[in-house]
Amino acid sequence: MTTPAAFLGHGGRLGAACAAWPNAPTPWLDLSTGINPRPYPILALAPETWSRLPDPESLRRLERIAAAAFGVEDPARVVAAAGSEALIRLLPRLLTARCVAIPARTYGGHADAWRAAGARIVDLDEPAADLRVLVNPDNPTGRALSADQVLDLADGPLLVDEAFVDLDPPRSVAVLAGATGHEGLMVLRSFGKFYGLAGARLGFLVAEPDLATRVRRALGDWPVSGPAIAAGLTAFADTAWAVQTRLRLIEDAARLDSLLDGAGFTIVGGTPLFRLAQAADASRRFEMLARAGILTRPFPWDETLIRFGLPGPQADWLRLADALENLR
Amino acid sequence: MTTPAAFLGHGGRLGAACAAWPNAPTPWLDLSTGINPRPYPILALAPETWSRLPDPESLRRLERIAAAAFGVEDPARVVAAAGSEALIRLLPRLLTARCVAIPARTYGGHADAWRAAGARIVDLDEPAADLRVLVNPDNPTGRALSADQVLDLADGPLLVDEAFVDLDPPRSVAVLAGATGHEGLMVLRSFGKFYGLAGARLGFLVAEPDLATRVRRALGDWPVSGPAIAAGLTAFADTAWAVQTRLRLIEDAARLDSLLDGAGFTIVGGTPLFRLAQAADASRRFEMLARAGILTRPFPWDETLIRFGLPGPQADWLRLADALENLR
Repeated sequence: MTTPAAFLGHGGRLGAACAAWPNAPTPWLDLSTGINPRPYPILALAPETWSRLPDPESLRRLERIAAAAFGVEDPARVVAAAGSEALIRLLPRLLTARCVAIPARTYGGHADAWRAAGARIVDLDEPAADLRVLVNPDNPTGRALSADQVLDLADGPLLVDEAFVDLDPPRSVAVLAGATGHEGLMVLRSFGKFYGLAGARLGFLVAEPDLATRVRRALGDWPVSGPAIAAGLTAFADTAWAVQTRLRLIEDAARLDSLLDGAGFTIVGGTPLFRLAQAADASRRFEMLARAGILTRPFPWDETLIRFGLPGPQADWLRLADALENLR
Repeated sequence: MTTPAAFLGHGGRLGAACAAWPNAPTPWLDLSTGINPRPYPILALAPETWSRLPDPESLRRLERIAAAAFGVEDPARVVAAAGSEALIRLLPRLLTARCVAIPARTYGGHADAWRAAGARIVDLDEPAADLRVLVNPDNPTGRALSADQVLDLADGPLLVDEAFVDLDPPRSVAVLAGATGHEGLMVLRSFGKFYGLAGARLGFLVAEPDLATRVRRALGDWPVSGPAIAAGLTAFADTAWAVQTRLRLIEDAARLDSLLDGAGFTIVGGTPLFRLAQAADASRRFEMLARAGILTRPFPWDETLIRFGLPGPQADWLRLADALENLR
């Protein structure tokens, strides 16, 4: 059984899933991404967030509060963009690196973006690399380095994608990225995953001020939507929510592990926002789950792996448990 | 009296206005942009537009409905982005033009973006130019060419920024941009101005399919937020609203002209979304309006000009009328 290519590149392809399995029960339960399924509650937004051009001062305020949340002293080192993907695509066209070291089995967007800019992709330990890219904690393996281990790698330019670090903030090196003595260290932070608001499109680069300025200029005025700025300002200020959510996601991940384990999967990695599960017949299981209207994430480089995002409401947990029961 | 530099580059700088005139009555009446002050009504959005990664299929659906609205037959030629500004910044880094002809007194973002990419800016009739940029109808002058006049200019690569063409659709050349025989013709369309939703960040490029593909790749996955996609899908489908809004804006512009004329301004240009008004003491008038909490738009290249956006609610019209009364 061959898994359709549409699902091997990225999660979240519900449109393609509806087309591939038209008889699956709807609505689909989308477990194909690593996004918190219980989003930060966005209450009514002021109509001006929609109607007005976002004031540059509100964007600077967002960068200040994000800097504080990341522990970054100088907000000039923090640049907001419409999602970290926008930064992943932009950086290869601003930096001069031609030989870029990226682990083979990590988030595929990095290699895509550097290849599109004409760079050669090499392995992480290649000494000729003039820039290295690290996803920490890694997606999908969940392999996580400590901040010290990351800094040991940062003897040359290093881009660290910390999309999933909010679950384990001490691993972040954002506090040092671009600071004196760490000019070559760049960090990407994601807003949508931990806060469950991936549709808002909000992400950040932390880098030395000159690069930050060049990125701001390349993004132009008004890079982030008014609603996303408002959501970010509110969510970053709510530290109690962040603390509770971290605990809740860790509990939920343990609950998911226990379900998957009971269904004969071996948990081989993950972060609290997703679990990487292994089974010899994983592609058959992916297909059976899809027939039950549950989209998970297979990988082109190992057909024994499936990544599961967390269910949110209790009904979704029960639906997953039922479907897993039928796999055995 | 010198107008503070913060207001000479762009409209919409309410934060800077609050700082410059802390005693002005609030809330400010912002007439410094050319944005429809009575936005398309965004009703409750499905929570998924915020929480999920936007499905690529919904983005393609938005491009199809936008193509239909622009009269473009092949939706592959229409690329959605997070505002036309994002495209204005991106194109100079994808196209090879080194000598770019841009009129001196038009929207400043174009020259900024090409200069930042290392291009030399020349006048529109410079034969050595390898690309020309035209804003049609022009901002702020309102100078408007017919579609035929634009096509006459398109013997080489031509980028036409049609941010304000929704008020006068027959002037648009989007229908031909990038089509066979018009490969060098590129058109930018704005969503936020006519629909009054500038905070949503949504704009489009119409271009030949190869360039469209390169732009899509450079923007990456998920370039537009879920809420903006949902707003665009709904608004473009509502052709009755568009027809009524065009008529209403034309009436409102006439009403604004009559107010400005009564206050001793001469109307020297504009579109129904903004009026360009001239007075010998315009910088004094800009300052007096600001002291009354009304932000308008001065220009660095002619201190006798002020651009006025349209007031929306009746109270704002009365407030403007009062303030203009005091100018005399």
